This record gives sequence, C-alpha cells and structure tokens, in this order.
Amino acid sequence: MGSLLVISAHAGDFVWRAAGAIALATSRGDRAKVLCLTFGERGESAKAWREGGTLEEIKQLRRTEAAAAAGVLGAEIEFLDAGDYPLLESPALVDRIVRVYREVDPSVVLTHPLADPYNQDHPAAARMALLARVLAQAAGYDAPGEPLGAPPVFFFEPHQPEQCDFKPDVLLDITPVFGAKRKAMECLPAQQHMWDYYTDLARRRGVQLKRNAGPNLGLPHTTMGEAYMRLYPQVTDTLS
Amino acid sequence: MGSLLVISAHAGDFVWRAAGAIALATSRGDRAKVLCLTFGERGESAKAWREGGTLEEIKQLRRTEAAAAAGVLGAEIEFLDAGDYPLLESPALVDRIVRVYREVDPSVVLTHPLADPYNQDHPAAARMALLARVLAQAAGYDAPGEPLGAPPVFFFEPHQPEQCDFKPDVLLDITPVFGAKRKAMECLPAQQHMWDYYTDLARRRGVQLKRNAGPNLGLPHTTMGEAYMRLYPQVTDTLS
Amino acid sequence: MGSLLVISAHAGDFVWRAAGAIALATSRGDRAKVLCLTFGERGESAKAWREGGTLEEIKQLRRTEAAAAAGVLGAEIEFLDAGDYPLLESPALVDRIVRVYREVDPSVVLTHPLADPYNQDHPAAARMALLARVLAQAAGYDAPGEPLGAPPVFFFEPHQPEQCDFKPDVLLDITPVFGAKRKAMECLPAQQHMWDYYTDLARRRGVQLKRNAGPNLGLPHTTMGEAYMRLYPQVTDTLS
Amino acid sequence: MGSLLVISAHAGDFVWRAAGAIALATSRGDRAKVLCLTFGERGESAKAWREGGTLEEIKQLRRTEAAAAAGVLGAEIEFLDAGDYPLLESPALVDRIVRVYREVDPSVVLTHPLADPYNQDHPAAARMALLARVLAQAAGYDAPGEPLGAPPVFFFEPHQPEQCDFKPDVLLDITPVFGAKRKAMECLPAQQHMWDYYTDLARRRGVQLKRNAGPNLGLPHTTMGEAYMRLYPQVTDTLS
Amino acid sequence: MGSLLVISAHAGDFVWRAAGAIALATSRGDRAKVLCLTFGERGESAKAWREGGTLEEIKQLRRTEAAAAAGVLGAEIEFLDAGDYPLLESPALVDRIVRVYREVDPSVVLTHPLADPYNQDHPAAARMALLARVLAQAAGYDAPGEPLGAPPVFFFEPHQPEQCDFKPDVLLDITPVFGAKRKAMECLPAQQHMWDYYTDLARRRGVQLKRNAGPNLGLPHTTMGEAYMRLYPQVTDTLS
Amino acid sequence: MGSLLVISAHAGDFVWRAAGAIALATSRGDRAKVLCLTFGERGESAKAWREGGTLEEIKQLRRTEAAAAAGVLGAEIEFLDAGDYPLLESPALVDRIVRVYREVDPSVVLTHPLADPYNQDHPAAARMALLARVLAQAAGYDAPGEPLGAPPVFFFEPHQPEQCDFKPDVLLDITPVFGAKRKAMECLPAQQHMWDYYTDLARRRGVQLKRNAGPNLGLPHTTMGEAYMRLYPQVTDTLS
Repeated sequence: MGSLLVISAHAGDFVWRAAGAIALATSRGDRAKVLCLTFGERGESAKAWREGGTLEEIKQLRRTEAAAAAGVLGAEIEFLDAGDYPLLESPALVDRIVRVYREVDPSVVLTHPLADPYNQDHPAAARMALLARVLAQAAGYDAPGEPLGAPPVFFFEPHQPEQCDFKPDVLLDITPVFGAKRKAMECLPAQQHMWDYYTDLARRRGVQLKRNAGPNLGLPHTTMGEAYMRLYPQVTDTLS
Repeated sequence: MGSLLVISAHAGDFVWRAAGAIALATSRGDRAKVLCLTFGERGESAKAWREGGTLEEIKQLRRTEAAAAAGVLGAEIEFLDAGDYPLLESPALVDRIVRVYREVDPSVVLTHPLADPYNQDHPAAARMALLARVLAQAAGYDAPGEPLGAPPVFFFEPHQPEQCDFKPDVLLDITPVFGAKRKAMECLPAQQHMWDYYTDLARRRGVQLKRNAGPNLGLPHTTMGEAYMRLYPQVTDTLS
Repeated sequence: MGSLLVISAHAGDFVWRAAGAIALATSRGDRAKVLCLTFGERGESAKAWREGGTLEEIKQLRRTEAAAAAGVLGAEIEFLDAGDYPLLESPALVDRIVRVYREVDPSVVLTHPLADPYNQDHPAAARMALLARVLAQAAGYDAPGEPLGAPPVFFFEPHQPEQCDFKPDVLLDITPVFGAKRKAMECLPAQQHMWDYYTDLARRRGVQLKRNAGPNLGLPHTTMGEAYMRLYPQVTDTLS
Repeated sequence: MGSLLVISAHAGDFVWRAAGAIALATSRGDRAKVLCLTFGERGESAKAWREGGTLEEIKQLRRTEAAAAAGVLGAEIEFLDAGDYPLLESPALVDRIVRVYREVDPSVVLTHPLADPYNQDHPAAARMALLARVLAQAAGYDAPGEPLGAPPVFFFEPHQPEQCDFKPDVLLDITPVFGAKRKAMECLPAQQHMWDYYTDLARRRGVQLKRNAGPNLGLPHTTMGEAYMRLYPQVTDTLS
Repeated sequence: MGSLLVISAHAGDFVWRAAGAIALATSRGDRAKVLCLTFGERGESAKAWREGGTLEEIKQLRRTEAAAAAGVLGAEIEFLDAGDYPLLESPALVDRIVRVYREVDPSVVLTHPLADPYNQDHPAAARMALLARVLAQAAGYDAPGEPLGAPPVFFFEPHQPEQCDFKPDVLLDITPVFGAKRKAMECLPAQQHMWDYYTDLARRRGVQLKRNAGPNLGLPHTTMGEAYMRLYPQVTDTLS
Repeated sequence: MGSLLVISAHAGDFVWRAAGAIALATSRGDRAKVLCLTFGERGESAKAWREGGTLEEIKQLRRTEAAAAAGVLGAEIEFLDAGDYPLLESPALVDRIVRVYREVDPSVVLTHPLADPYNQDHPAAARMALLARVLAQAAGYDAPGEPLGAPPVFFFEPHQPEQCDFKPDVLLDITPVFGAKRKAMECLPAQQHMWDYYTDLARRRGVQLKRNAGPNLGLPHTTMGEAYMRLYPQVTDTLS
C-alpha cells in the first residue's frame, strides 16, 4: 500500500491542482495526506476580507472548507498555520515538515513548482518541502522515525503555467475520479469562478493526454487530465 | 505484445546506448527492430581506414558486426545504407523511414538526442526519425499500412551527455540483461576500449538509479542502468 | 494605415491561433493578408481522407473553407500550394514569400513558433517566414518592390504551448471581435471539436490577461484573449 | 496621470539604468518616485572610503548626490537606509516597501533583474520589490491604503547584461530626454568614468532600437535608448 | 607555431568581430587565414546597391576592401563566392570547407554563433563550419591531407549579442593590437558608422575584462577587448 | 605564487570533487586552503550514526579523516563547524568567510555549483562563498586586510551532474597527481564505495578531455580528468 503526501502553501491549492491524483490514490486504497502550511488567510481570501471577516474567522472558514474537500477525496488533512503572505521560511517550520515525512513515509510527494512570479508563497512552500524531504532522509537528522527513502516528487500545475516554467512531463488520466474532483472544488464556494476554470483545464489536459497517448489506447472522448512535472528522473524497468 | 523501434545513425550506436532496453524488450517477448541509417563507414571506422580497407569492405565489416550484436540481443536489424559523414537529410530517406514505422507499428521508439556538437549525423538521424514518425501518423500520407498511433520517443545517451543537453529523465534498470549487453558490445572488436567505458557508464547510471529509487526498493548492490530522455510527456494513470 | 501579414503552414492555422488579431486589425481599417503555404491536405484532413476524398478534392475543400473564414475576418487570403507533410523548405518557396512581403509591406507579421514536436511543418513555415523577411529587407535582393522595413514578428499559440517552448509575452484583448473569431471557426466544420477547445482557450487567456492587467483597467467579466510571443524586442517611447 | 516607482538597491542605480524612463515619465506629467533601499555606502563608494570618509559622511554624500540627480529628473526620492553589502532581506524591510506601493499606487514599476553574479544586493532588492508588490495586492495584507492593482514590472539593465541573463525585450527611445539623463549622471562626480560609459551604452541601445524599428519610423541619426526586460506578459489591444 | 582559421559568412564580418584575435595571432608569428563564404554582395552592401552598382562590381569592391583589411592584420584571405542572402547550405560547399581545414590544420577556429534572428546567413555559415570540422576529423572522409585534430572553436560577437544567445565566456585582451583593428576597420569605408560603434564595443568589453580580471593584474586604464564563446570545454592543466 | 581557496559544505566534498586541482596547485608550489563550513556530521555520516556514534564523536572522526586527506594533498584545512543538514545561511557565517578571503587572498576559488536537488547544503555553501567573495572586494566592508581582487570561481562536479545543470566547460588534466587524489580518497574509509566511483569518473572525464584536446597533444592513453564550470568569463590574451 502506498501513501501520498501533498504539501501546499495554502488551504485550497490541493483541490485545484492535485485533487485528481489524490482521488486516484485513495480509490486504489492508498493513504493520502494533505499538509497545508497556511490557511491562505491573507493572500487567497479577498472576498472574506471585503466582507469584513476577522483573521480568526477567515482562518476557520478556510479550514472548514478545505477539510470538507479533503473528506470528499478520502484524504487526511493537517494545517501548520504558519502564516501566509508572506509565508516565511524557517528552520522550525522545516523541522515540522520533516516530522510529517517521517510519520507518513510517503511513496509519492506532490508540491508546488519552484517558480511563480504571481505568488511567492508557492515557491517558498516548495523549497521547504524539498529541503525537509532531504533532511528526513538523513540518519543523523534528529527526529522520530526511520530515515526516509527517496520518494519521487511531482510539481502540480500553477495558475499560469508558462509564466512559471511549468512544462508538463506527466499527464495523469483522472477521468474515473473527475466527479470527485468537481465535488471537492464545490466545497470552496468563495472561488466559484474557479470551478469551471479548472474543469476546462482538466478537459484541455485530457485532450493533450489523448494526443500524446495516441488513438490506440481507446481513451474515451472526454478524457480528463492533470499535468505534473517530475523533479527527479523516473526509475523504471520498462520504457513506456 | 509490444514492439520497439530503434533508429540510429550508424551501425554501432544501438549497442553502446540502448542494448539494455532492447534486451529487456525481447526478454519480455516484444519485437525489437534496429534501423541503422548508415554503416558508420566513414565516420566511425577509423581503425579500418588506417588498415587500408576499401569502402565496400568496411561497410561489410560493420554490417556483419552489427548484425551479430543484434542477434545477441534478439533483435532484427535493417540497414538503409544512406551514407554517413555527412548523413544527408532528404525526403526520400524520410519516406523510407515512414514505411518502416508503418510496418513495425512500434509501441516505443528510441533514437539519438537532437544536439551533438561532436557528430552532426546523430541529430540528423534524430530529426528524420521524428519527422517520419509524425508523417506516418497522417491518414493522408501516401504509404502502405495504417496510420501510426503516438508511440513515446526516448533519446538514448550520447557520448558526452552534458555537451548534448542530455539530462536523464528516465533511468532504466538493465541489471537482468547486462550480460547480454556486454556480449553485444564484444561483437564490435574494433572499439574494444568502449567495452569498459560503457560498462563503467552502466554502473554509474545504476548508482544514480539506486539513489533516485531509494533504499526501500531493495535493489542489488550492483545495479546497472541506462539513461534516457523523453521527448513527449509521459501518459499514465498512476504517479510513481 | 497598417497592414498585417499572417504566414501559416496550413489552411486552418490562422483561424484557431490568430483570428482575433486579424479581426482587430481589419476592424481598425488595416489591411490583413493571410498566406497559407499549403492547404494542410495531407496532415490536417484526416476526416476527409477517411471519407475517401481525392487529393484534389481535399485541397479544394480546404481552400473553400479557409477562404470563407478569411472572409468573415475581412482578410485577403492566398495559397502557395507548396505541399504539406512534409512542407519542404526551398529557395524557390522562400523567394515567393519574399515577393509577398515586398508587395504587402506589412507593419506586423504573425507566424508559427520555431519549435513544435508534434508538427514539423509549423517550424518549417516559421523558418521560411523569418528568412524571407530578412531577405526582403536587403536592397540587393532581386525582387520587385522596395526593401522591407523591420516589421515586428509575433508567434501565435501552438496546440500544446508548453511543449513548444511557448511562453506568452503578449496577451491580446480580443473581446470586441470574439464573435467574428467564433464565426470564422465555424467555417471549418471538419474540426468542430476545435470550436469549443479554442473558445475555452480564449477564455483562459482572457482570465490571465485580466490578472496581468489588474483590476483597475475595468475589463469585463468575460474578457477573451489570444497569446503571442515576440521574436524581436519591442520598440517604444513609453513603458506600459 | 500615471505614476512610476523605481526600486533600487543603492543610491546611484536609478541614474545609470533608468534615468531616461524617469525623465520621460515626468516630462509627460506623471509622478515618479525613486526608492533606494540603501545608500550604497559600503559597496559602491570605494573612492570615498579610500579618502578616509566615515560611514555617516559617506551616507550623507551619497544621499546628497542622489537627491540632486532625482531633482534633475523631476522625481521624488526616498532612502530606506537598510544597509548594503550585504543588503539583508527581512519581513520588516519588505513591509516598508509594501507601504510605499500602497501610497504611490504605481502604474509602472522598475527594478533590478533577478540575477547578478557581481552584486548580490541587486537581486536581493529585486526579490523584495517583487514580493512586496504581490503582498500589496492582497486585501488581507495589513497595511494602510487600498490593495494594489497589477502594475507591470520592468527590469533595468545591469552592468554586464549577458552575465545577468538580461535579454532586452523592450527598447525605450529616450532621445528627447537624454540631455536630462546626462545631467543627472553628472550629479555623481565620484563615478565620472561612468558618464561616458553609459552615454555610449545609450547610443548602442539606440542603434539597436533603430534596427528593430526599421527605417520607416524616421528616427533621428543619433537615437538614444535604454533596454528593459518585462517580468509579466504585456497586456494590449493592439499588436505593434 | 599555431594557425588560426576564421570562417565567416560575408566579407566584412571578420573585421568587426575578430580582427583583434587575428592580429594577436599574427603578431605572435602564427598563421591566420580568413575564409569568407560570400562577399556579402546582396545582404551587406546596401549603399553600393543604392548607388547603382552591378553585382560583379559590388563583389569586386567587397573583395578589394576585405583583402586590404586582411592585409593590415597580416592574414591570408580566401573567398568561396557561394552567394549570400540567402547563403545556401550544400554538401559541395561543406566539402570545400573540409579541404580548407585539412590544408590549414588550424589550432584554433573562429566563426559566427549558431543563432541570429537578424541574419540567417550567419548561423548557416556556422553550421557548415562546424560540420566541416567534424568531417575533416574522420579518417574515412575522402579529401586530401591528414585527419584534423580537435581545434577549439570560438564564436565571435554578433551585432546584437543578447538577441543571439551570446553570453561571453572569454574576454580577450586586444589592447596591444587595437590600432591594427581600427586600421582594418577603416579599410571598409561604406560602413563608416561601424568604426566608432566597434571601437566603443571594444572599450566596453575592455571595461568588463578589467572588472573580471580584478585590479591586481594592473591592466591599463583603457583596456580594449573582444568577447567570445566556446563551443567545446576548455582543456587545460591549470585553473586560472 | 598563487593561492587556491576551496569552499565546501562538508568535510569530504573537496576530496571527491577537487583533489586533483588541489594537488596540481600544491605541486606547483601554490598555497591551497580548504574551508569546510561543516563536518557533514548529520547528512553525510550515515554509517557512523548507524554504528551509534555521538554527535561529537562523529564530528571528530570527520575532522580527522578530512585533515588527513588535506595533508596528503599538501593543503591547509579549516572547519567552521556551522552545522549541517541544514546548513543555515547567516550574515555571521558569511562574515567569517569574508575574513578567510581577505586572509588567503586567493588567485582561484573553487566551490559547489548553485543547484543540487539532492543536497541543499551544497548550493547554500556556494551562495555564501559567492556572496562573501563580493563583500570581500568592497573597500567599505569592515574586515581586516585589503579588498580582494577578482579571483575566478570554478564550480566542481556534483554527484549527479546532469541533474544539477552542471555542464563542464573546463576539463582539467590531473594525470600527474591522480595518485595523490586516490590516496586522499582512501583517507575516508567510511565511503569506500566512492573510491572506485570517483576513479571511474576521473577516467571518464579523461577520455572526454582527450577527445576535446584532439590526438595532436599526445596525451597518454590513461588520462585522468576533473570537470569544472566557470562562473565568470575567462580573461586571457590568447585564445586556445
């Protein structure tokens, strides 16, 4: 049984960008855990601020919504409440992430890409996710649990991929679980305009997936996809 | 049952760079076909020229050796005898390659990377291999057989990878068939210094493969590897 | 009064990728001319081939449809019938393009990007379009008309932008003419699945356009966009 | 009426690299504000140190000179006195920059490029300028004023452009204001060798500007230019 | 005694871009040979065409001027008269270049960089220069003389370096021979505006050279430089 | 007499990656100093941790071994004991490095490349080494000694070069001192598997060195090499 660890800067990121991968994992019986470094309370809650919410109310709102989305996907979720906009990198925060790695022992890791000129919290989260992964591998790092193996890392798709040097090298077929992804998106009512935007994106990535797969695979007319980039080379015993 | 098509500029390239992938394919029962555009009679036969061979003798020698190596790997081999140094790109040669695609209907394609400042025949072969693949996909292209699907393309490793913008994104475990690769290399006696060079390289790629796989996979101490780059995104229903 | 020259490999490319820019130009009173190097008779007419059309019938069909689309956009259209799949580069074809440059004297040029691993005709068209532009600038080049100035060149968006190193650096607001673009797309019935695909894309580029423009510009909720890349630096007397 | 915000690491940077853009803005009636994070007191005042100045004297000297140069250009200037060599990034300093953004509400932002192997203060200033811009956009960020729009960001030219991955994508015609730029440079007597160096550079960029504009624009023989790079895509309703 | 081979597209290129390297070589007693593939009769002789020269007159003029410049630098010069704008790549032309390599047996090769969006003859010349070098190395290539060694290749500086992906990695001190370079430039009266332009460039590259050399080398106040890029790694027994 | 400064993250790095360059320097009579920011006590001592060593014991062990290796190479060694995994960047640590620069006044600097997805301590060390170098150049930086010149910086080879954007641009012939490198490696018994790995690498880099040098140099059959990348352009008065 595998386990999937998703590390994101804000509470909603995992839904738009990786809900398909999460639902595929849990539908196979794998464990999936989402680690949100912040609630996105300052940077991604414009509507709530305009409506006059307090900081605590907004955090609570985001927590509730994200937890509901995780529930739809069959995933655990944990919030580190590290404060966003800016998300500050620190040894203490990295250490908390190391401990999550050691506890979850993931077979696959998902996080943000390393460049995003529209949102510096995203690369900050990615840098900490990657640093913590390497620290967790060291026998000499002082944290509970066994040294981590070498789980592959995939970057999920940012909002403006070309501006973030995001060149998809994996197209994941999420057709069987797209219904769950849509439901998870609908747990985030403040960003309703994103529901269709990311449905369109899944359809577009699906078209590209079919074109790269070729007609012989017999994929359905409406194939839905998510795009990823690998950080490390793929290890395999079969080219395909 | 799959089929592997390897398109290379010269007669020996497939041995040093892809013998592991070929032997893995044939050991699984897949068909493997090697298409050599030339014999490497001018550019890669310095020893034979120094010993006074004629052009025809050298071609025959290279053909015999390469055929023996293919035999060890269980692969078919075909020579287009297009002339090397320089390998000239032409519509007629591309058309011949299209026909091979249509006949073999490969599930996987291997060829040279697109940059090589030490040998322009290599990128010329790669450009033709890629052009022919796309032409073979077109219903309107006038050649026997059905339109090709969209087989993935992998670039195999050049002699000086960093100078050829070769960044491995797939590490292939060839441990079970490395013996066959070594035997195939030994079919090419004029390049004996390469036997150890490419054995060392397989060991180095194996070390990297183990490091990227992590200790949990339980790979053997001496894992042997080959490195590849994908041209197109991987299509999959599982991240791993 | 300006003039826009669009140089594309196949008959349909200008519709999906640049119809908005064309319609904006003609709605301002500029001349717009589309130069199709081929009809896309082999590479982009799979449906017609499956239905048993002859080469000439398919060319005629594509010509009729593309001419209708150009008509909707208010643009002239010319076909060089150079043969596609593969589109072969030749001095004679380049010379014909030079003559079009000299005749149109464009103030802006649009063409394909220089990389496309899915369709080598596209970069071939782009290379010839760029070469012809530079030849047309030379006083010593033997063709009728005055030496060309230095019109800026924009690459329009390919089907899989990230795989073609396409990083948008201009987002063009095509909202006022999107209706015309949709009508032009509907002139190409064989590719009906593309109508919605490129409508979605226009919406996505519109969302990005609004995000890069900021809220202060007061752009409408549904802004439609097309993405372009510049080949040469922008020349301006105002940063904005 | 627009407003231009120039954020630089040291007191002199805005003169060599962006005086033309500033003078163009103020000559159009726009507001222009220069924000110097430091005086360049340690890293860019070698002559004053060799002459035995104290830290405070050198800061005062740089302040006086830079203020004079800003005066010539019609710009406001503010110094944050954050300490240079090294310029340390901190949340407190970023917060101060956010407040400047909210107060100025710029329509255009200029800063250093993100790479400079000769001076790490420059990319540090750029990173903070970009982070502060994104923070200032957030409704939830706790600072006076309205959330910022999305002003475009331009990187100005570093001393050794090719070593800083600086590829000009905007060439700005500063011919009408070059006299003011020269006068502003002459306010910095300690770096007299730079006056001619940056006059030459303006001439060189002017030659390139003319070549990219073409002969039809009728630019004067001695066109003077400044080079910039965009961080975000250009938003426009006209390709030109 | 070494030998320098300079391969350029047009008759004047070697003067603006490499005269310093040539003069340094000949002043050391090395042989230097300039190989001009064309006279630049169409693409770089706008003034002569405007004055009504015939093709033959213009070729003769360019030949005379370039020969004079080579004479000033102490270099041999040969013209292949292959026709410019466009310079067409062909096996026959490459073969002629191979024979020059075999005859000269250069210890160093200079040519154009591989990208130039303003002049496609330049990369065409470079591609042929590089292909011919590799062919000349092959024992099996049928041309007089001994197989070539592996002379390093340097790309000289194009007119708009940043637009040609030209990142200098060698700064050559040409101070002692700059007088000869200026005289060689003055042999080309039709391009008088270039004399100062390339004098300024030499001064700018000299300033950068001094900055990269550091103050300890005691270089003169007015150091003059030329910039180059290496194609292949430097081979050395000392890091410096 | 020159001086070489090697700045590395952990105690063993200089042996695997730069022992050849160090031994060449000392064999010429140059001073060589190795500055280890940490002992690699947590990240690179897995064996010792598994055997139950304490932190202090492990540090002491690494210090002893590294000092022995430095002794074999004729180099001084200093440990800053800054703590590894993670190596934290701080102004205080950078200041200590500045002081070493001012004291050693190196003519050449070696350090890690700036990217390494397997070990973030390596780029952290490199960033500090580069920042300290620039600070040490400033007359206004408050530390004993004279302002530093501009010593060239070379990045040594990481464990998985292609994954670290490491493209060798200098191949250093270490044949005469390879015996010393091997002995230095053998001072690190816990990493015995590295001895052969880096001997193989030296042989591979030697083969490439010979291929880039060409046959005319008469290099011995078994040439051993180390690969480096330059950060700054080479300054020279001879192309070779």
